[in-house]
Amino acid sequence: MSTSDITTKTIEGYAAQKVGALLELFQYDCPQVGPWDIEVEITHCGLCHSDLHLIQNDWGGSTYPLLPGHEIIGIVKQKGSLVQELEIGMRVGIGWQGSSCGKCEWCHQGEENLCLKQEATCVGHFGGFANKIVADSRFAFPIPEPLDSVNAAPLLCGGATVFSPLLQHNVDATMKIGVVGVGGLGHLAIQFAKALGCEVFVFSSSPEKEAEAKKFGAHHFLSSTHPNAENLVDLLLYTSSGSVDAKSYLKLLRPKGKLVIMGAPKDQQVDLEVFDLIVGRKTVCGSNIASAPVIRKMLQFAALHGIEAQTELFAMQDINLALEKLANNEIHYRAVLEN
Amino acid sequence: MSTSDITTKTIEGYAAQKVGALLELFQYDCPQVGPWDIEVEITHCGLCHSDLHLIQNDWGGSTYPLLPGHEIIGIVKQKGSLVQELEIGMRVGIGWQGSSCGKCEWCHQGEENLCLKQEATCVGHFGGFANKIVADSRFAFPIPEPLDSVNAAPLLCGGATVFSPLLQHNVDATMKIGVVGVGGLGHLAIQFAKALGCEVFVFSSSPEKEAEAKKFGAHHFLSSTHPNAENLVDLLLYTSSGSVDAKSYLKLLRPKGKLVIMGAPKDQQVDLEVFDLIVGRKTVCGSNIASAPVIRKMLQFAALHGIEAQTELFAMQDINLALEKLANNEIHYRAVLEN
Repeated sequence: MSTSDITTKTIEGYAAQKVGALLELFQYDCPQVGPWDIEVEITHCGLCHSDLHLIQNDWGGSTYPLLPGHEIIGIVKQKGSLVQELEIGMRVGIGWQGSSCGKCEWCHQGEENLCLKQEATCVGHFGGFANKIVADSRFAFPIPEPLDSVNAAPLLCGGATVFSPLLQHNVDATMKIGVVGVGGLGHLAIQFAKALGCEVFVFSSSPEKEAEAKKFGAHHFLSSTHPNAENLVDLLLYTSSGSVDAKSYLKLLRPKGKLVIMGAPKDQQVDLEVFDLIVGRKTVCGSNIASAPVIRKMLQFAALHGIEAQTELFAMQDINLALEKLANNEIHYRAVLEN
Repeated sequence: MSTSDITTKTIEGYAAQKVGALLELFQYDCPQVGPWDIEVEITHCGLCHSDLHLIQNDWGGSTYPLLPGHEIIGIVKQKGSLVQELEIGMRVGIGWQGSSCGKCEWCHQGEENLCLKQEATCVGHFGGFANKIVADSRFAFPIPEPLDSVNAAPLLCGGATVFSPLLQHNVDATMKIGVVGVGGLGHLAIQFAKALGCEVFVFSSSPEKEAEAKKFGAHHFLSSTHPNAENLVDLLLYTSSGSVDAKSYLKLLRPKGKLVIMGAPKDQQVDLEVFDLIVGRKTVCGSNIASAPVIRKMLQFAALHGIEAQTELFAMQDINLALEKLANNEIHYRAVLEN
């Protein structure tokens, strides 16, 4: 895409005109930059499974034209009168969450990702597969200098999603952390858990991923269906998609262990019995993106420890190629679009 | 039962000779009192649904003759050479857990209820529906003076089970606590949540229980299937039996809310989808009795706040009548046997 029209009143991106359609060039009028808003010239945008779910309306509620993209990196070009922290010319990142009410108890306590009136960057709004976006500055985060834009883009949603439960559940370096799946989320989860100082167990049904999992920081690589695999980890991050055989995964937990589920295909069932939870006092829970303060911490932590996504870079106009490879599970490990 | 033979080398109790049988008078040789053991003359023993499950071998693994009973109150009659805290003549209580390995990390950190080698008072051992018992002193707790023996007996298992998650999950007085079910566990859960200073919501399908639920301390009494009931509580203690419609109960939770399941019938399914957990970052977990330190705290807290079970008292020889009423859900709210 040409960025020559960046200063006009039109934004150009790629949108699906109907359920499951290929993305096509699409223009819309640039919204007014409100007092809390910034206008961002997008340089990169990561491609997340959620974008695919939105295009295919897997969760219901998608509206078309649908312009996805919510792992945005770009440069601030304009700012509203109340924006203090961000300056024109700064490099910022924007993730899944686009806004919150700002008035409820969750917003008050810095847990905007729990706000019942939150809105997503690309649900009911036009997202990041575009040349620019007008965004709420409270959900745009300065990108620390050491992070490369291409490999940092996937941190905004994927990285935040896997980092958040490590913080929520007070993970410390004495704990044993498991990761199910070595994909877009999983390869980031392994790196964060390793950097937190934990002993890292990776469970996968793809033996060929062992070498890379260990390169990302795994200490152990096991088949998740190994008959003797049990009582191993304190926290198990389930990053795969498909139905969750919670009964088997709960067996991998040590007493007090927690299974955290973060993929969200449509109608994804969790199969378990009460005894699986009661014996050893175990937990099944979900992770939904991350709060703004946690995203800030995540970016600082990633910069300090050199954590970044392993990416395949596509030109923005090749968005449909990237989507096809993602749908076929052929991306290692995260696709990023570049303007 | 006569207690005239309390000083002989025989213990008399009531045992099932086979799966589902009525309990019959049964004698066994009094075990040696080891260095850490105490011999307790049983005055009272509460009747818990778990006893029924054991008799009926609902969980598999029951061995017969099976002498149940694990909500014991009695008087220390003998003590081993290493027992320091307990003295002959003291009134003590004994609950579900009878022993632990004493050597694992969970035992080291005072979470013996997570020990993988723990044993139960009346599984593979003869329990509390008897005139006496020889027990590991580390799992026998002094009963604070203000507590009545009859109404304190059910605290040892039922009380511990509902109190423990309130502590584990750091409940404070600003939180909203829900209780599903107004029965043996539920009526204790309401009292503990009220005494912790919380706003207490009771969910029940029995409208006739509203007055008593409010007497126990409930602020609100709602039908659990009320179509508008959602986003109400931070912690929901599920004390009912039967399959858990987790999907509906998760809706009752506020963001970050937790559903704690404590009943454990055989093959009890938990029905939910991943989205139910991810939206609002919710949790489903189990509670398994309580650690020894938590049982001590629970007894002190109950004594301070006047929390006790509402009981129906039976003579020990009427154990089968009590079991029948329990099986028919006719006990209000907890049966206690007396020698």
